[in-house]
Amino acid sequence: MTAELISVGTELLMGNIVNSNTQFLAEKCALLGFDMYYQVTVGDNYGRMKAVIETALERSDLIILTGGLGPTEDDLTKEVCAEAMGMELVEDPHTRKHLEAFFVNNIYKEIPDNNWKMAAVPKGALVLDNHNGMAPGLILERDNKTAILLPGPPGELYPMFNDQVFPWLQKRQQSVLVSRMVKICGCGESQVEDMILDLIDSQTNPTIATYAKTAEVHLRITARAGDREQAEALIEPVLEEISRRFKEKIYTTDEKVSLEMAVVELLKKHKLTMSTAESCTGGMVAAKLVNVSGVSQVFMQGMVTYSNEAKMRLLGVKEETLRAYGAVSAQTAAEIAAGGAAMSRTDVCVAITGLAGPDGGTDKKPVGLVYMACCLKGKVTVQEYHFKGNRDKIREQSMMKALDLVRLCILEQGDC
Amino acid sequence: MTAELISVGTELLMGNIVNSNTQFLAEKCALLGFDMYYQVTVGDNYGRMKAVIETALERSDLIILTGGLGPTEDDLTKEVCAEAMGMELVEDPHTRKHLEAFFVNNIYKEIPDNNWKMAAVPKGALVLDNHNGMAPGLILERDNKTAILLPGPPGELYPMFNDQVFPWLQKRQQSVLVSRMVKICGCGESQVEDMILDLIDSQTNPTIATYAKTAEVHLRITARAGDREQAEALIEPVLEEISRRFKEKIYTTDEKVSLEMAVVELLKKHKLTMSTAESCTGGMVAAKLVNVSGVSQVFMQGMVTYSNEAKMRLLGVKEETLRAYGAVSAQTAAEIAAGGAAMSRTDVCVAITGLAGPDGGTDKKPVGLVYMACCLKGKVTVQEYHFKGNRDKIREQSMMKALDLVRLCILEQGDC
Repeated sequence: MTAELISVGTELLMGNIVNSNTQFLAEKCALLGFDMYYQVTVGDNYGRMKAVIETALERSDLIILTGGLGPTEDDLTKEVCAEAMGMELVEDPHTRKHLEAFFVNNIYKEIPDNNWKMAAVPKGALVLDNHNGMAPGLILERDNKTAILLPGPPGELYPMFNDQVFPWLQKRQQSVLVSRMVKICGCGESQVEDMILDLIDSQTNPTIATYAKTAEVHLRITARAGDREQAEALIEPVLEEISRRFKEKIYTTDEKVSLEMAVVELLKKHKLTMSTAESCTGGMVAAKLVNVSGVSQVFMQGMVTYSNEAKMRLLGVKEETLRAYGAVSAQTAAEIAAGGAAMSRTDVCVAITGLAGPDGGTDKKPVGLVYMACCLKGKVTVQEYHFKGNRDKIREQSMMKALDLVRLCILEQGDC
Repeated sequence: MTAELISVGTELLMGNIVNSNTQFLAEKCALLGFDMYYQVTVGDNYGRMKAVIETALERSDLIILTGGLGPTEDDLTKEVCAEAMGMELVEDPHTRKHLEAFFVNNIYKEIPDNNWKMAAVPKGALVLDNHNGMAPGLILERDNKTAILLPGPPGELYPMFNDQVFPWLQKRQQSVLVSRMVKICGCGESQVEDMILDLIDSQTNPTIATYAKTAEVHLRITARAGDREQAEALIEPVLEEISRRFKEKIYTTDEKVSLEMAVVELLKKHKLTMSTAESCTGGMVAAKLVNVSGVSQVFMQGMVTYSNEAKMRLLGVKEETLRAYGAVSAQTAAEIAAGGAAMSRTDVCVAITGLAGPDGGTDKKPVGLVYMACCLKGKVTVQEYHFKGNRDKIREQSMMKALDLVRLCILEQGDC
């Protein structure tokens, strides 16, 4: 089946916002096994939108439209789509009630008349309730062609797609798609691909897709089968083989788990408390950890010691060490980690000190040189990295590698 | 003039990456005053790409294509575009030399044969040197239609567009476009629009466009004139009027300056040192500040005190205060700011304590309640906010508001 995405909105054509909806939907369509050849963005203009929809209905089996479902005169998507598919608009009592409830819950003083426009739906359409906004989603079917109309705001689109559209599409596929995500830290994308080239080449079901992220590579293993159990059975041996090859470099096989969540889980499991002592990352590792809800059980405090004076006073780094080796050195990183753990009375402290640039690099210590150290119950492990890219990239890679260092240290000696 | 964007790439159709190039180019086209009605994404397929390009050349004056210029067989953009415009490919000696230099500089052991494909250009095309990669950009003109072909990687596309394509397009416009960005913190988008509705409605040259960001609104004032001086003269009175209306809420009129850069500049100007003490933002404010190159002159240290114990030990918050008012309270925020400044021996300390959720909210203290305090040379200013949105959104808004609080406090009493 071929799917095509149509985004409606002037703010996209003007470059005011990035089209993240399209990426979201494209990834889901790929996951569902649809072929996608075209994505189109068009404005709220009757003639141009109609031409785009007609072309899409000719060349694709399924079209998914986002945006232009609201209450204003500019919002035309439903009207144009209904006309292109030869369906008339009728008022839907269920949607009218849903809108009334929305207005009551959101304490509207008066309901603007034009809002009732949203209660009109193409006759015979499947209505998708919008639990996070006003305009409902719609599924229109005619002559083996399907149009799915969804609201533009991501906060309405994402849950509506995940909870209502995805299961509907999957059911229609008459087969079940199951996918597992393998998240790998510590290998580049080409290295990962090299290590599983034989698997990728020999597999058609399940398929394996790679996604490069900052300092991570994600592998998605997707199987199609008659039911979930069969699909799982197809995935299992491939997942086992991949686990065998990447071992501890895999930090999770759960799509919803991020690296910082994996680290927090490990800390909880081993009943360890943690602190951070950052220089060039300036609090990014702490901020990432604090992004995990419930982190307060294990994360005690973070320190950003940007000046040498703060490194000495807050973390007990020796002046001789700074003078002999400099702030960006393995020796200083080790002292920061040990001092940070002692000072904050935590089992673990991770330290980062490096040159994120653009200035401050020398021949001996170029921009991109970053040392990180992890102190776990007194044992300090130090790593040296030479990152490429601009200031942002260097800092982001440092943050991820620091989190991974904590993970690897706990795995190695967490139960000591 | 109408412009259309065509993105070429399977990774876009599969949803592996978000199409940020399109936003970048759309914003530039809007700035140049072009009308844009369509944006299309298509894969590396000869027939489909040709149809898309032919349609675009029919309905738009200028088409800008990104991606598909590389050395592999999949890369077809140049070949298809040349055919659609009836131009033949010839080897360009200048580009061949450029490629040879690239291989030498990047220490290629051997140059794969297919790389020379990139030296072929449509006869009569304007060649744009790629200073950050291999494939050159191309400008093709025929029968009042223009096609601009650009490499897909943002690191190659952005500088090539800014340095070579934008000036070329601007020159062709036979007029100069000058724009100024006004960045406002402390008003929502609709409030900003209300305050300048009369200006937006009455202006055609310059135009005013608003862009909503997290806790900020940006206004772009764009004037078109015969030369830069005339354009500046058109902008000046509008800029003055806007400055009069928003006063200190405007933190910069320089496009390149971010809120954290404005804060660092103010600190430098007033010779003030600063520290941060964060709870729910967990280091985000520190990380944002450290993103400013050269911040080490003014930013001394950051503390992330997630546990109450750390708040007491590191910042001297009184146990009675925590017991009487709780960690999330105006009183605690004030003590953190004052204690943080004393402890880190800085002129300024900004403190944030709040409930970012999703758990931990109560009727009296709901999720989204955030207190921030700024201590400047002993004087403490406290603010209370009720933010909406998920954990990420609450934390991001808190970070921005905290930076703005520092800015406003310095403006008010920086020279005291």
